[in-house]
Amino acid sequence: MLFKYDSLGLRLADHQIYLLDQQALPAQEHWVNATEPTNMEAAIKALKVRGAPLIGVAAALCLGLYARQNPEQAKIEVVAQRLRASRPTAVNLMWAIDRMLTKPPSEMFVEALSIFDEDVVLCQAMGKHGAELIKDGDQILTHCNTGGLATAGIGTALGVIRTAWEQGKKLHVYVDETRPLLQGGRLTTWELEGLGIPYTLITDNMAAMLMQQGKIDKVFLGADRVARNGDFANKIGTYSVAVNADYHQVPFYPVAPYSTIDLHCANGAEIPIEERQSAEVRGLAGSGGQICWAPANAPTYNPAFDVTPVTLVSALVTDRGVFRQADLLLGKLGKV
Amino acid sequence: MLFKYDSLGLRLADHQIYLLDQQALPAQEHWVNATEPTNMEAAIKALKVRGAPLIGVAAALCLGLYARQNPEQAKIEVVAQRLRASRPTAVNLMWAIDRMLTKPPSEMFVEALSIFDEDVVLCQAMGKHGAELIKDGDQILTHCNTGGLATAGIGTALGVIRTAWEQGKKLHVYVDETRPLLQGGRLTTWELEGLGIPYTLITDNMAAMLMQQGKIDKVFLGADRVARNGDFANKIGTYSVAVNADYHQVPFYPVAPYSTIDLHCANGAEIPIEERQSAEVRGLAGSGGQICWAPANAPTYNPAFDVTPVTLVSALVTDRGVFRQADLLLGKLGKV
Repeated sequence: MLFKYDSLGLRLADHQIYLLDQQALPAQEHWVNATEPTNMEAAIKALKVRGAPLIGVAAALCLGLYARQNPEQAKIEVVAQRLRASRPTAVNLMWAIDRMLTKPPSEMFVEALSIFDEDVVLCQAMGKHGAELIKDGDQILTHCNTGGLATAGIGTALGVIRTAWEQGKKLHVYVDETRPLLQGGRLTTWELEGLGIPYTLITDNMAAMLMQQGKIDKVFLGADRVARNGDFANKIGTYSVAVNADYHQVPFYPVAPYSTIDLHCANGAEIPIEERQSAEVRGLAGSGGQICWAPANAPTYNPAFDVTPVTLVSALVTDRGVFRQADLLLGKLGKV
Repeated sequence: MLFKYDSLGLRLADHQIYLLDQQALPAQEHWVNATEPTNMEAAIKALKVRGAPLIGVAAALCLGLYARQNPEQAKIEVVAQRLRASRPTAVNLMWAIDRMLTKPPSEMFVEALSIFDEDVVLCQAMGKHGAELIKDGDQILTHCNTGGLATAGIGTALGVIRTAWEQGKKLHVYVDETRPLLQGGRLTTWELEGLGIPYTLITDNMAAMLMQQGKIDKVFLGADRVARNGDFANKIGTYSVAVNADYHQVPFYPVAPYSTIDLHCANGAEIPIEERQSAEVRGLAGSGGQICWAPANAPTYNPAFDVTPVTLVSALVTDRGVFRQADLLLGKLGKV
């Protein structure tokens, strides 16, 4: 079947939203119906759908379809608030919901389709701008998953890598497995296999050693929220990569669409960080299996994201161009 | 039953060596007989027995018991070479075997018992010296497992922490889970529960964020081989912790007995690094379960250790005292 709105992780058919369950990948390719707002909310919380841009697209489509059936403003706002609160760190979700709420109910579904279409175009633009930073032969480290599974298009950081590869540049990608939820080990590897791009999977704590050995030329990864000053939140472990990249003088590039930039956040300290359940750190919970290898009641800390200061950012790649650290420090994001 | 030679992970009874299978902990406390050299060699390779000092003790006991039954020098040397080669990075193993080979077969078993006894005493001494670096209220990060399971005594880095705790200092320990084999998540947590020392389990990529938040006062961890200049090899991930500690100005202390110092190694570049099988990185292999969450043939890199340069070491804690970085740079290890 050919869908007009058909991305690697989300499909729209007969006014139903289907999500490829990202907790089950790559072992199973299982599509779930998340048309009902309660199902979408649960799918976002359980990370069946994930990736800051794709969450925004999925929630907008859900709200748009709901508004089509239930055009009462009060009801729509209740659903919007529930979807908006389903993940607190990624700002694209809030951005997409807020944009939907500027429209009357009768126009919401069409607006959601526009958000989907625009995300595809934004990914192309990020890919084009970011690929200019990549040279033939580069060895690139990436963290978490930022590809077709994280967006409606080709991805953010992985979209940049894919674009450079499709330009004919030889590349090798080192993939951080990204504990605790293993988005690198499960999803980025799966995408790279599909694309035929050579890669090597490592545990997160091996990246520093590869940099020490001179095997990493550049780091490309995503961003879930960028503050006005260029600080940004991204998947836990990003900050550790940033410190190591700085120490080894490896260029470090977050890649994100403009909807990730939160001009209301002056700096990274204002970005709320979601904490998740202990079971994810005590073992595997939902991603890769169900196992507890630690003592059953082991106390844990499980922040889903960390914040990297702009001082560790070589440049931020967006669909509107590349902002060098100097640009970010001059406050140019406020003028995007 | 009361054994004279009875550590947390190794027991000697009726001239048989029993190992607590460290791949099965904490889910199962299963003791295996590793008296036969082929069994001991397999147990070392499979990490049923691990920890640089304990491997040395276990291999020495195995060789001593073998020599008691088979006092032919040629046969003993074949067994010695096989045991010596079972793990290439930790130098205590080579040190213990070489020491055994200086004795006639009739004295080897008694020599092995001496190595066991001495390790207990070395741990006490490291604990005493290292605990002087710890203040009441310290929050300490550790990596891998360096406690009673890694030695014949109270441990190296974890022995230091335990000694400070038993001196009445309030402490909190942050435990890196230590992918891929989860020695932190499975073993250090289990030991700390038994000791009643408060701890928090984290994934390896969270340590940097804790340092950024000012929640780590000191890092204590082990060493598998220390070069003459103070560079040292330790469990993969140690170097990443070292870079992050340096960036955040957190004191960073490896702890090891003098048998870990390899005066034949001029610097870290000369330390051989063991690479292990892909299945450990593709999922869980033997530690915490048997699962592959990555694509079945995902290419991996799996170094078991990394090398941290002396420039990132605040001080090396040994049984013979604390060597500050300045001492190490002056070559004082060569005079231990």
